[in-house]
Amino acid sequence: MLEKFDFKLHKTKSEVLRVDDALGRITCKSVYAKISSPYFNASAMDGIAVISKKTFGADERNPIILKLNQDFIYVDTGDAIKNPFDSVIMIEDVIYVDKKQVQINKASSPWQHIRPIGEDIVASEQIVPSHHKISPFDIASLLCGGITEIEVIKKPLIAILPTGTEIIEAEDKIEEGKIIDSNSRMFIAMTKKIGAKANRYKPIIDDYELIKERIVDATKDNDIVVVIAGTSAGREDYISSIIRELGEVIVHGIAIKPGKPAIIGLVNNKPIIGVPGYPVSAYVVFKQIVEPLIAEYLRAKEPKKEIIKAILYRRLVSSLKHLEFVRMKLGNVSGKLIATPLNRGAGVTMSLVKADGVAIIDKETEGIEAGEIIKVELLKDIDVINNTIVSIGSHDVIMDLIGSLIIEKHKKYSLSSAHVGSLGGIMATKRGETHIAPIHLLDEKTGTYNTEHIKKYLKNQNISLIKGVKREQGLMLAKENPKNIEGLNDLMNDDIMFVNRQKGSGTRILLDYKIKELGLDSTKISGYEREMTTHMMVASAVSSGSADAGLGIKSAATAMGLEFIPVGEEEYDFAINDKFLEEERIKIFIDVLKSDAFADELKKLEGYRIENAGSISKL
Amino acid sequence: MLEKFDFKLHKTKSEVLRVDDALGRITCKSVYAKISSPYFNASAMDGIAVISKKTFGADERNPIILKLNQDFIYVDTGDAIKNPFDSVIMIEDVIYVDKKQVQINKASSPWQHIRPIGEDIVASEQIVPSHHKISPFDIASLLCGGITEIEVIKKPLIAILPTGTEIIEAEDKIEEGKIIDSNSRMFIAMTKKIGAKANRYKPIIDDYELIKERIVDATKDNDIVVVIAGTSAGREDYISSIIRELGEVIVHGIAIKPGKPAIIGLVNNKPIIGVPGYPVSAYVVFKQIVEPLIAEYLRAKEPKKEIIKAILYRRLVSSLKHLEFVRMKLGNVSGKLIATPLNRGAGVTMSLVKADGVAIIDKETEGIEAGEIIKVELLKDIDVINNTIVSIGSHDVIMDLIGSLIIEKHKKYSLSSAHVGSLGGIMATKRGETHIAPIHLLDEKTGTYNTEHIKKYLKNQNISLIKGVKREQGLMLAKENPKNIEGLNDLMNDDIMFVNRQKGSGTRILLDYKIKELGLDSTKISGYEREMTTHMMVASAVSSGSADAGLGIKSAATAMGLEFIPVGEEEYDFAINDKFLEEERIKIFIDVLKSDAFADELKKLEGYRIENAGSISKL
Repeated sequence: MLEKFDFKLHKTKSEVLRVDDALGRITCKSVYAKISSPYFNASAMDGIAVISKKTFGADERNPIILKLNQDFIYVDTGDAIKNPFDSVIMIEDVIYVDKKQVQINKASSPWQHIRPIGEDIVASEQIVPSHHKISPFDIASLLCGGITEIEVIKKPLIAILPTGTEIIEAEDKIEEGKIIDSNSRMFIAMTKKIGAKANRYKPIIDDYELIKERIVDATKDNDIVVVIAGTSAGREDYISSIIRELGEVIVHGIAIKPGKPAIIGLVNNKPIIGVPGYPVSAYVVFKQIVEPLIAEYLRAKEPKKEIIKAILYRRLVSSLKHLEFVRMKLGNVSGKLIATPLNRGAGVTMSLVKADGVAIIDKETEGIEAGEIIKVELLKDIDVINNTIVSIGSHDVIMDLIGSLIIEKHKKYSLSSAHVGSLGGIMATKRGETHIAPIHLLDEKTGTYNTEHIKKYLKNQNISLIKGVKREQGLMLAKENPKNIEGLNDLMNDDIMFVNRQKGSGTRILLDYKIKELGLDSTKISGYEREMTTHMMVASAVSSGSADAGLGIKSAATAMGLEFIPVGEEEYDFAINDKFLEEERIKIFIDVLKSDAFADELKKLEGYRIENAGSISKL
Repeated sequence: MLEKFDFKLHKTKSEVLRVDDALGRITCKSVYAKISSPYFNASAMDGIAVISKKTFGADERNPIILKLNQDFIYVDTGDAIKNPFDSVIMIEDVIYVDKKQVQINKASSPWQHIRPIGEDIVASEQIVPSHHKISPFDIASLLCGGITEIEVIKKPLIAILPTGTEIIEAEDKIEEGKIIDSNSRMFIAMTKKIGAKANRYKPIIDDYELIKERIVDATKDNDIVVVIAGTSAGREDYISSIIRELGEVIVHGIAIKPGKPAIIGLVNNKPIIGVPGYPVSAYVVFKQIVEPLIAEYLRAKEPKKEIIKAILYRRLVSSLKHLEFVRMKLGNVSGKLIATPLNRGAGVTMSLVKADGVAIIDKETEGIEAGEIIKVELLKDIDVINNTIVSIGSHDVIMDLIGSLIIEKHKKYSLSSAHVGSLGGIMATKRGETHIAPIHLLDEKTGTYNTEHIKKYLKNQNISLIKGVKREQGLMLAKENPKNIEGLNDLMNDDIMFVNRQKGSGTRILLDYKIKELGLDSTKISGYEREMTTHMMVASAVSSGSADAGLGIKSAATAMGLEFIPVGEEEYDFAINDKFLEEERIKIFIDVLKSDAFADELKKLEGYRIENAGSISKL
């Protein structure tokens, strides 16, 4: 990305540090030893130091007697061997005669069992080359070589300028229309992590003169300037005008997504990067533009990218015009690495928190089909990913709870949940792309849960059902039920705005079953078409007043402080292919379901009941 | 290693930090969002906010006129959408009528182009789980979720106690018998790097009561205590007696090499580790025992080990009794990864500085033959290793100089030199295990350098010779030549102690040629059997008085301030298989040889002459 722009970064500064403080820093030039290590010829054994010539000719038949202080002295490992002594005999080969004499039965060759001066480092030898990152053992060698101070490349100072009238600090009181500045504080962490120094300015409002003044100021004392534009479209035009007025815009708009509206410029000969306000765009631009710029400044080797190959779980539509960075969940199921795309919204910070890697989709790619092999740059350790229990299916807040209990039980394992609805989970199980599928699927004919759907969709596979929890589903309503909703019948009322779950989710199936049972017409429900993918998103819509009612679990309603009218109790269980039942991670998952800790935590939530959780029925 | 000992580390402490200060720290428990993000329903477009019901029925034939402030308001991306507005129409789809009216030709469905509250995070949802290491984007999500403070596991405090009467600080004046404490300061760096806090105590002398007192004191305020014993054999018995008196010795002596005499114990219920004084042993014990203990305390996932497979360059004899850690240089030659064992001495810190990886040789392995595949744990990035120019052959200080110039020319590449002598270099070239082989091989018959040996040993291969430097070889003598040595003839003198180079080195071949020419008998030379592997080691032996004379290059003599009697000028060139000549890294190597910078640096050394450096002759 960066090769195209010549930034004339030649003015790298240096500073002299105590060697102890130089961990992870980059040397400016080769460092040569001032003294040798060891500094003296040292005994490598416990024994006696002798004059080798005086031992010549000694053997079993002609032993030689040596006199203390005259022919030999006692030495311990590490003791200096000085003139006239030039050889060491191990104490095991020395025969004690009396306090002043010993006998030897073997000649000692010159310099045997002596660590010579400079065995480790000879004075004037190079210890570390230039442009070298200092490690803990480099520190040891430098100290042994008599180096206590070292010249290293000074950390570049990165100015971080959040702008936008809507921007507030996380510590301020939030209100409608305001956005918490998270970008600049994420940038501080990214800057630190790569070995530079962050200099964050307080957020300022969208005032041309004010921003201009601040940019001029920032280019004086910092090495690189990063300006974060607000999230409003066209805001970056504002920043690019200022940069053009003050210096030069090299690029405005780069063909990467998210991140497109980035600006690269020069003001006062300092690189200045305009970063879009959406957090994921901001992250991508910092990673792709600012980090390589810092690495260049530090003369460091490019930070290593670990790329793995994975099987794409579901079809990915892509843009022809941009190189796209798609955040992925990864899971190792039966030795195959499965990549599930996360929310691609540029504003969804959680897509980065949840991501195990980022797939880079080339420009001019129309899309990638499910099942194709894609390349993914890892964000997490591959060992961690390989030890993750993959869950694809229905959403419940208890999945986070189970995840925490698993980590506490065995820190090696973790749980990753993708929420695609119960039917999606069944399909993932069918294709062998998940370990477990949380499901709550009501069979209309029998009125039972889960077993009928498994029999229908997974009939030729060996599937078991791990018992989960019973949970209450019901209508979530605004506090104090201002519209006096009493049940599903009221959804027919023109005045009531509903919010729905996505097709294939167990909750959607339950809703459709119930309204059919009541003889209602779903096309008459206002908001029936508006779909959310989690219980919490539905609760949030009701809580914010954008909907009057939604169907969901009681724990979600309670979490958001909503009213709740029960509609029914359902069974939330886990479908699993039998072949996984013997894996240690699945055993730990089942242990957690059976544990008192799980039962205790469930009691703190509302709307759950436990009956044989963790028991396995073969289907 | 650690699984065997149950350390009852349950008293992990926690502390509350500002989220900004929590980068890289480990969470104690799951963290849930306090507020939703976005905090309000926000326009996702620049356009107009409308009441969706008022747009129903609009199409090309039946456009609808909307009135400002009554039916619609103008909004920018990010603006809050409040009651009664529930839908956004993009500005591109709005037809301007007049200042107070617009026309639309299409109905707007409820909640279109609106980012719903909680699209990113819904209040009460989990942001990060327990035992999670906080990344820069976690910080962004936490701030967006209204979290400004976070409870993390407190860094454990590691007491580091250097002991030994011979130990001095690197800042002190060094003298015979004294050893610079490098271990404790390496441990500080290792401790920091893994995310704990180091509490180093000043070195103390070998006094039983003093050490006991200090250990008791250290177990009070610290979480783990590391005592570094001196390098003298049996010193750890001293430490183990103290631990036994104060608490319990769990293990004394572990089957790893280097590192064997390590001690693991408990005092005041705190883990205490006794570490041997030799630096490489100290490193291995800290890495294998103390680091996993700290990781356990931090409840962190085990630090990842990157293991690669490589071809062993030369036979490795190993101990049956110990798991051995052998430091390795690695090089990628023609796509094969070649591992060359480094000095195995426990006191050679430079073997760690130079190492690219560590081969772990199992117990009960008798040895491994050259050419076998071994597993190596990487210490450096594999990309760096893959971009290294491999040089195996003769030693010269200019190799470090060339290495630095290469990095400066192109930071992607580096040079790695193994010193096995000229003939060793020829053999490595023959087996395809090196890119270049620095050689200086005199042909006795023709009196010429290098070409005859290549023709003889590499006759069926396509080899070229890259011109290096001409350099002076001669006798290195103590300052002011106290023994009045005038030439090689004087080596026959009983009174003169010589120090030799190893067989196969060009310098050894030169010596043997010269003494044969003079008709001398090498068996009469005292010290002829004492072999060193580098010019600097020979210079060091002469400088320390352990030898009176050695043969070597003038630059080494000058570096150590020695007298020098020239014996001859020789040619130090580089043999290379033609197939490497087209590789970019080799071109850069040649460019450096031809550069003015190289010529200038050579002028600062003594005993070199340049003639067509970098020119290539096909042999």
